[in-house]
Amino acid sequence: MDKNQTLNLRRKHIGPSCKIFFSHDPIKIVRAKGQYMYDEKGQRYLDCINNVAHVGHCHPDVVKAGAEQMEQLNTNSRFLHDNLVLFAQKLQATLPERLSVCYFVNSGSEANDLALRLAWQYTNNRDVITLENAYHGHVSSLIDISPYKLQHQSDVEHNPSVHVAPSPDVYRGKYRADHADPATAYADEVKDIIDKAHSKRRKIAAFIAESLQSCGGQVIPPAGYFQQVAKHVRKAGGVFIADEVQVGFGRVGSHFWAFQLQGDDFVPDIVTMGKPIGNGHPMSCVVTTKEVAEAFMSSGMEYFNTFGGNPVSCAIGLAVLDVIEKEDLRGNAVRVGRHLTHLLEKQKEKHLLIGDIRGVGLFVGVELVRDRTKLTPATAEAQEVIYRLKEEHILLSADGPHRNVLKFKPPMCFSVEDADLVVEKIDLILTELEKALGLTLKNTLDIANEGNKRKLQADENGNQCENGLVHSTEGGHGAPSHSKRNKRLQT
Amino acid sequence: MDKNQTLNLRRKHIGPSCKIFFSHDPIKIVRAKGQYMYDEKGQRYLDCINNVAHVGHCHPDVVKAGAEQMEQLNTNSRFLHDNLVLFAQKLQATLPERLSVCYFVNSGSEANDLALRLAWQYTNNRDVITLENAYHGHVSSLIDISPYKLQHQSDVEHNPSVHVAPSPDVYRGKYRADHADPATAYADEVKDIIDKAHSKRRKIAAFIAESLQSCGGQVIPPAGYFQQVAKHVRKAGGVFIADEVQVGFGRVGSHFWAFQLQGDDFVPDIVTMGKPIGNGHPMSCVVTTKEVAEAFMSSGMEYFNTFGGNPVSCAIGLAVLDVIEKEDLRGNAVRVGRHLTHLLEKQKEKHLLIGDIRGVGLFVGVELVRDRTKLTPATAEAQEVIYRLKEEHILLSADGPHRNVLKFKPPMCFSVEDADLVVEKIDLILTELEKALGLTLKNTLDIANEGNKRKLQADENGNQCENGLVHSTEGGHGAPSHSKRNKRLQT
Repeated sequence: MDKNQTLNLRRKHIGPSCKIFFSHDPIKIVRAKGQYMYDEKGQRYLDCINNVAHVGHCHPDVVKAGAEQMEQLNTNSRFLHDNLVLFAQKLQATLPERLSVCYFVNSGSEANDLALRLAWQYTNNRDVITLENAYHGHVSSLIDISPYKLQHQSDVEHNPSVHVAPSPDVYRGKYRADHADPATAYADEVKDIIDKAHSKRRKIAAFIAESLQSCGGQVIPPAGYFQQVAKHVRKAGGVFIADEVQVGFGRVGSHFWAFQLQGDDFVPDIVTMGKPIGNGHPMSCVVTTKEVAEAFMSSGMEYFNTFGGNPVSCAIGLAVLDVIEKEDLRGNAVRVGRHLTHLLEKQKEKHLLIGDIRGVGLFVGVELVRDRTKLTPATAEAQEVIYRLKEEHILLSADGPHRNVLKFKPPMCFSVEDADLVVEKIDLILTELEKALGLTLKNTLDIANEGNKRKLQADENGNQCENGLVHSTEGGHGAPSHSKRNKRLQT
Repeated sequence: MDKNQTLNLRRKHIGPSCKIFFSHDPIKIVRAKGQYMYDEKGQRYLDCINNVAHVGHCHPDVVKAGAEQMEQLNTNSRFLHDNLVLFAQKLQATLPERLSVCYFVNSGSEANDLALRLAWQYTNNRDVITLENAYHGHVSSLIDISPYKLQHQSDVEHNPSVHVAPSPDVYRGKYRADHADPATAYADEVKDIIDKAHSKRRKIAAFIAESLQSCGGQVIPPAGYFQQVAKHVRKAGGVFIADEVQVGFGRVGSHFWAFQLQGDDFVPDIVTMGKPIGNGHPMSCVVTTKEVAEAFMSSGMEYFNTFGGNPVSCAIGLAVLDVIEKEDLRGNAVRVGRHLTHLLEKQKEKHLLIGDIRGVGLFVGVELVRDRTKLTPATAEAQEVIYRLKEEHILLSADGPHRNVLKFKPPMCFSVEDADLVVEKIDLILTELEKALGLTLKNTLDIANEGNKRKLQADENGNQCENGLVHSTEGGHGAPSHSKRNKRLQT
């Protein structure tokens, strides 16, 4: 089928709530290998965004493991099978000792929902503390604790059992890099929330956070924050859930799990996994302590997941772990991540639009601002960069509450040459953009109200084509505008 | 690893809430083909229960489709891909015209949760009517509407937005086969619930039911029931969700979807799919009308599912549809289902323990009772049959609120010879059992209180080993005992 036929059938039969990349000129991908994807004409794209294809698209070891097991057996976990227990054992070996019991499920959403059920049962409490701009999944229980998905602050507040703590963002958040101890300041905010909840006779079941906030704007919490939060939450009878769906499996390079960046003295009560675990195969996992698992069991309610932990998924999961090790992908994440961050730091010296560079391993964010003091989000400019990179056959996305953070999370085989290429193109694009905006190091005017100066390209999903341009006018600290919410793409 | 090593690792690393079949002597399965599974010693088992391996375990066409696509590309649905739209088109062709919009997700639970979200958004109402003994999935929103999972009736009643209607079971339910019009009587119960809800100013978003209740006891609702329920529910502003997770994809033989048994004049607003859709590959789908899809879209909240609709899952889904057609598996379900039901009917003439035989295609239930008048559930006897069949290398399960319904839902390639074999074994087992119980056609004593007459085997999951025997003493209509709840295995 040609691209238009595919598109027309899609319009007819696929729910329109699932947005397509670059909807005014979508890409039809027919094959992929490593960090490269290829369209129907054979054009190659460099993939900087697909954290699901963790060990590289269509990795032969993973494909082989899946295909061979599919030929042998694919059944549920009511029968004994070695793949299930070997995968659990191998996964456990990457975690602190006390996180020893696994539940295999099919998606990050199923994992986070199960984490809530474990927390509710173990603590016998109901309330959940989540972070500003958090995204934890698409099932209904998780929409409730995902401020990222909600159009209005009131949608969060209307649920008395959900409490939203400030995002520990030291660039744009309440306490910044110039604060003496942002970790304690942010953790104290959680303590205040607990105290207020207690004063209303509410009880805390869990604090949940991505170990590094991804959709929320590539936020890296200050070290020590999780320890202090865990202390407050456990004192209140709750548990700490670390959501590693987007950032786990060695992406940060120095550690296998992003929560380990906080220090060896921090161990969550529940860890949820997802996207990279099966290199694209639908699977995920929740790992917890023996105590939590036993409390869940003692409810008397069985937990059965039809597909979770089947021998094919486990064979694939084992192969992914093997490849990470065999190809030293964590080492690659350290080396290439350092190189990429270094190149981007140099760009920051050159381009006023770059407000912040933050990253660990192959998790890197570039926050674009129109004004380095006011931190006015450069939302339309970020979209322009994404769109222009697409023309250069490079796939990158922008996210965060203001959609102004360029979000790198490429397959883990991303190379130094790939980093060179994407930064070179960003340099060219920002140079042109700043020239058109009259924004140079010698001419730091605030362009917040000069949105019409140049006709910017549409949003990456093309919605703005109907709406005209989208020069966001909100300030650095203001509430996010409502209109942007349906124009952002999670990846 | 030998079986004990596997078991020990499992005890260490796998959440104990997931029960294993025959836990006192579990089966280690290492390969499977068609309707047969093989343990580590090469012993063959006839599989009468695995409705997930729909077109037969490890069907070569399905394996090939999955393996080939895994080599090419596995990415998310933000890019155009033909597999996604072709699968949606082919799936749509099995459904009434107005069910035209698909959302691909990863499990039956994700599908049912999304169905609720669609209903809530479309109707702007919140309340859900579910059936007694219903099971719709394991995520938290679905536990709420799954009385099957709840230990106490009060757990359902404590949620003011969930209403439980009587199961339209014409054998054991409120209105039985001798009722003049059970379809209307059961539908009127739903109407009463709506009226009561309205009197409390509550508003109905949806009625949800499996098209045939599976875990709930292989219940086949009387024809015309869904039409009348749909009329009442739509009048109240709600939608009708048909859950085909267990029973769809031609299992009933005469139709592709079980809801179609109700008549051509019935079309649900939302249909959810699952288990058989990918022959074991983790995938599922929600199909709805253009109007519901547009309402969901108009909320402005995007719906993105990372793995849902990826090209590998869709290739597998397409292959499953092809095999159903090419091998005339619906025809096979009609022929073998008819043969099986006929054989079982003859057994009913011979064995007093058989209270009811009900089935369509390869969805068949055999309800065991200790007394054909009082309908005293023969729970322990059903477990005995399951356990003894296992010794004969035949896998069958017992389910329903009293765990006394033998549940047939084999792979669709199940043969006449397979049916002959399993019924022959059931005959032998029931003959011995009835002899031991002193239960013959000439001696119809009520054995409800004679549980100690013969030492019965433990429950299929072995829990009774600690508890002694499990002669249930509840009456035919009484509330199910609490203790049984954690001894039942969903399949």
